[in-house]
Amino acid sequence: MLSKSQISFVTSLQQKKFRKQEQVFIAEGEKVIIDLLASSFVTQKIFATEFYFEKYRHLKIPSSTECITVTETELKKISALTTPNEVLAVVEIPSYIVQESELKNSLTVVLDNISDPGNFGTIIRIADWFGIKNIICSPDTADCYNPKVVQASMGSLFRIKVHFTDLPAFLKKNNEQDKIPVYGTTLNGENIYSSKLSSNGFILMGSESTGIREELTKFVTHSLFIPSFSDGENAVAPDSLNVAVATAVVCAEFRRRQA
Amino acid sequence: MLSKSQISFVTSLQQKKFRKQEQVFIAEGEKVIIDLLASSFVTQKIFATEFYFEKYRHLKIPSSTECITVTETELKKISALTTPNEVLAVVEIPSYIVQESELKNSLTVVLDNISDPGNFGTIIRIADWFGIKNIICSPDTADCYNPKVVQASMGSLFRIKVHFTDLPAFLKKNNEQDKIPVYGTTLNGENIYSSKLSSNGFILMGSESTGIREELTKFVTHSLFIPSFSDGENAVAPDSLNVAVATAVVCAEFRRRQA
Repeated sequence: MLSKSQISFVTSLQQKKFRKQEQVFIAEGEKVIIDLLASSFVTQKIFATEFYFEKYRHLKIPSSTECITVTETELKKISALTTPNEVLAVVEIPSYIVQESELKNSLTVVLDNISDPGNFGTIIRIADWFGIKNIICSPDTADCYNPKVVQASMGSLFRIKVHFTDLPAFLKKNNEQDKIPVYGTTLNGENIYSSKLSSNGFILMGSESTGIREELTKFVTHSLFIPSFSDGENAVAPDSLNVAVATAVVCAEFRRRQA
Repeated sequence: MLSKSQISFVTSLQQKKFRKQEQVFIAEGEKVIIDLLASSFVTQKIFATEFYFEKYRHLKIPSSTECITVTETELKKISALTTPNEVLAVVEIPSYIVQESELKNSLTVVLDNISDPGNFGTIIRIADWFGIKNIICSPDTADCYNPKVVQASMGSLFRIKVHFTDLPAFLKKNNEQDKIPVYGTTLNGENIYSSKLSSNGFILMGSESTGIREELTKFVTHSLFIPSFSDGENAVAPDSLNVAVATAVVCAEFRRRQA
């Protein structure tokens, strides 16, 4: 049976403050836990139903991971989901160092103030699909260990390195030293389909409502635009794409060129 | 002041049953209402704060639309949003007829069982951006007048015709008569970047968890696949893209070829 302190510990991890203090976060769901256990992330505890442990008895769970059998009712008490799954894990927050040599020869997504957890999680999933290994975020981007981000990333969080850093300083240093091209999508950029795209670079995405913040636009070396094919029959045209959708269209076009 | 019956009427529209019965739905937010008023949709009522009516006094509101000034507290009572905007409208559900001549010469998105309202709304927005005028859905797809769909579509719902129909019968008839190409995205399709794509066609998208249902796969004339660029360094590879993201990548590629 779950103790009150166990319940309050796990539910506290829905808040960033406690995740930061304890340096752990929660991950839920069968598929997500398969991806977690196949990754280098350290799993402290797994809370799951008897049914789950029986069904997944072939899964390699490290001996250092504490396995706790719970009922569905107990799981509901600690879950961040409205419809809890059979399993919830408490996972250590990893610490990554930005490897500049890795960034030099690859594509990297850079996020400026993406506050919606669902969009952020979807972007992590997109990066994973398109073989992007690093995402570099402004500190005001959502926390990647927020349960909603973890959920929306569908296990991709365990394969991608997410970094938080002071973006103006980071991009300034890049433009002075490494000179990795910085692609920004803006409403007045060059049509992406007729632009020259390099095989390495930073793909900088800003928030849907405010775009890339002005402080950062000066570091953009190539300004891109995804053309709209709306025919203007209507008085009002669509003014933007969802930020995750735009990220996907841009990443797909970079990868198409290299295929 | 809002009466109890007004409050219960508007909040009842969060449920499909009452939307169907009354043949109206709700739309919220400044941008969404601008798009609504520029469209051919009939707005029955606008509930807004004094501040809103003052700020938007230049907006052309038809004389048949009832304008009701409310306080922010009152708006909160009728809103479907956790953070209500300044304005909420009650809008008539339009009735559309599928124009086969229109479908013959254009791209159309066809949705099989897309149950998540956020994804559905995002797909409506994507269709709008890529100049797609019709979306044809299976009856078990989310209701396009669900407040979450309206919100996620960001006003695009007012520029797109969304139809609900029996998809097997619809696609069977198409394959026998009109013979519009049917493109389905599947895990074993042809790489979209090396496939021949026509300028007209149905882009059929299935649910993320189950894909296009088997009953429909036999109507797919061209099976496509968005290649993953994940390098397989990890034990587990990403197995899918979010359905709205996949729709965007496919639509973008069709349009790129025509540009």
